[in-house]
Amino acid sequence: MELEAYLKRRQAIINRALGKYLPSVQELPGTIHRAMRYSVLGPGKRIRPVLVLAACEAVGGKISSVMPAACAVELIHAYSLVHDDLPSMDNDDFRRGKPSCHKQFGEAIGILTGDALLTYSFQLLSSGNKPAGNGSASEVRLRVIGEVARAIGTQGMLGGQVADVEVTRRRSVKPQLLQFIHTRKTGALIAASVRVGALLGGASPKAYQALSRYGQRVGLVFQLVDDLLDRDGVVELSGEAAVRRQAERLTRSACAALAPLGRRGQPLMGLAEFILTRES
Amino acid sequence: MELEAYLKRRQAIINRALGKYLPSVQELPGTIHRAMRYSVLGPGKRIRPVLVLAACEAVGGKISSVMPAACAVELIHAYSLVHDDLPSMDNDDFRRGKPSCHKQFGEAIGILTGDALLTYSFQLLSSGNKPAGNGSASEVRLRVIGEVARAIGTQGMLGGQVADVEVTRRRSVKPQLLQFIHTRKTGALIAASVRVGALLGGASPKAYQALSRYGQRVGLVFQLVDDLLDRDGVVELSGEAAVRRQAERLTRSACAALAPLGRRGQPLMGLAEFILTRES
Repeated sequence: MELEAYLKRRQAIINRALGKYLPSVQELPGTIHRAMRYSVLGPGKRIRPVLVLAACEAVGGKISSVMPAACAVELIHAYSLVHDDLPSMDNDDFRRGKPSCHKQFGEAIGILTGDALLTYSFQLLSSGNKPAGNGSASEVRLRVIGEVARAIGTQGMLGGQVADVEVTRRRSVKPQLLQFIHTRKTGALIAASVRVGALLGGASPKAYQALSRYGQRVGLVFQLVDDLLDRDGVVELSGEAAVRRQAERLTRSACAALAPLGRRGQPLMGLAEFILTRES
Repeated sequence: MELEAYLKRRQAIINRALGKYLPSVQELPGTIHRAMRYSVLGPGKRIRPVLVLAACEAVGGKISSVMPAACAVELIHAYSLVHDDLPSMDNDDFRRGKPSCHKQFGEAIGILTGDALLTYSFQLLSSGNKPAGNGSASEVRLRVIGEVARAIGTQGMLGGQVADVEVTRRRSVKPQLLQFIHTRKTGALIAASVRVGALLGGASPKAYQALSRYGQRVGLVFQLVDDLLDRDGVVELSGEAAVRRQAERLTRSACAALAPLGRRGQPLMGLAEFILTRES
C-alpha cells in the first residue's frame, strides 16, 4: 500500500531527527537526558510530526526547514503522555509496552522530564533552519511559537486535560464538557501541527485556510477514533454507530477542504484516512 | 531609602501587569486559571521581573516594551516553585505563608498549573509590544525565547533541579555537583532576566556584554545568599564567613561590570546590593 510506504519513510526520517535533536546521555545531567530519550524514542506512530511534514510539502515547502518544528511537536506530545501517566493523574504503569517514565525513573524525575521536554520543544521552535514563508523568517517562526503555545495552553490541550481531571473527580459527564475535552485535549495539537507545517512551508493565505480547516477536522476525528477504540467518551453517550458516522463525515469534509491544493494534498488525504481507520 | 521606593514602584507595576496578563477565572476552564493566579499573585519580591525592567532601562529602553517578558519570567519562577513543592519533590505544604498549590487544589491540578504557567510564559514571550532593539523586532524576540528556554532547560534551571533531586537521594554532596546546582538552579534564570531586559531594551553589543557579566554574578550571589539564609549548601562546605566574603566580592564585581552604562546603571547597582543584603 502506497500510504504505508509513505508513512514508514516519514517515520524513519522523524525518528532519526528526534535521536539527533534530543540531548545526548553523555551530556550532564545524564539522568534527565536518558529519561527524555526513553520517553520519546522507541515505538510511536509520529502522527503529529508526519502531519507537520505533509502540510509543509503540500504547500511546496522543504521538509528540512520544518524538521526542528516537527520534532518539537512530538516532544510536546511525549511531555503530555509523561505527565498524564503520573500517579496523581491517570496512574499508568506502562506506556507503549514498557514501564512509564515515572515507573522507570521515579516520580520526581517523571515530572521534571515532562517539564524538560516541554521546555526543549520551545528551544527547538526558536531555532532551526530559515523557513520558506513570506514575510520575515523570524516573524513566521514567532507566529508558530504563539500558535503552538495557545494550542497546548489552558485554551487547548491543558484545558482539555484539566476538564478531564474534573470529570474523573465528579464521576458524571455532561455532554458539553465532553465536547470541550474532545476538541482540546487531542484535537488542538493535531490541528496546530498542520498549521505549523503550513506556516513554515510558506503557505499562501488561501492554502493556509484550507489546511487549517483540514487540521481542525482531522484533530476531531483523531479523538473520536480514540473513543471508538476505548469504547468510552462520546461513544458511551451517542453509541458506536453514530460516532463512526460522524468521524467518516468529518474525514470527508477534511479531504474536501484540501481541494485548493490539488495533487499536492494527496498525502494528507491518505493521512486523514489512516487516522480514521487506525486500529490502535 | 531610595532603592526601597524604586523597588516598591516597580513591584506595584509588575503586580498590576501580572494581574492583567494572567487568564481570568471567568474564562473556562476556571480551576486552572484560579490555580495559576493563586500561585503567582500575592506576596513575592518580583526580583526577576524587576531585573528585566532595570536592565531594559539601563540601556535606554522603555519598560512598556518589556512588560510581557518581565511577567513571563515571573511566571516561569512561579512554575518552578509549584513543581518544586510537589510531594515527590520537596513536599512543601506551604509557600509564602499559604498552602502550596497542590495542597490547595490537589496534586493533579498542581502539576497542570506548573505546566500551564510554563506554557503561558512562552505565549507571552512570543507576543508583546515591538521591542526597541536593533535588527528586526521579531529576530530579537526569537533570540529572547531561545535564551529563556536554554536558561530553564536541562543545561540551566532544570539541570540544577535534577542534580538537586539526585543529591537528596544520595545523601552525600560532592563540591563540584553543588557548584553545578548553584550556577544553574537559581542563577541561570536570574542571569537570563538581565539579558532579556538588555536585548528587548535594544542594548548595544558592549552594553549587552556588560549586563551579561552583571547578571551572571548577581545570579550566583542570589544562590549564595539563599544558602547563607538557610545555613546549608556551600555554607555547610565552606563556612559562613567564606561564603559571605565570596558573595561580597561577586557583588562588587557585578557593579564594576556596569561601568560602561554610566549613571543609568545605578538602579542595577542598588539591586545587586539588595540581593546581597536581603534577609528572606
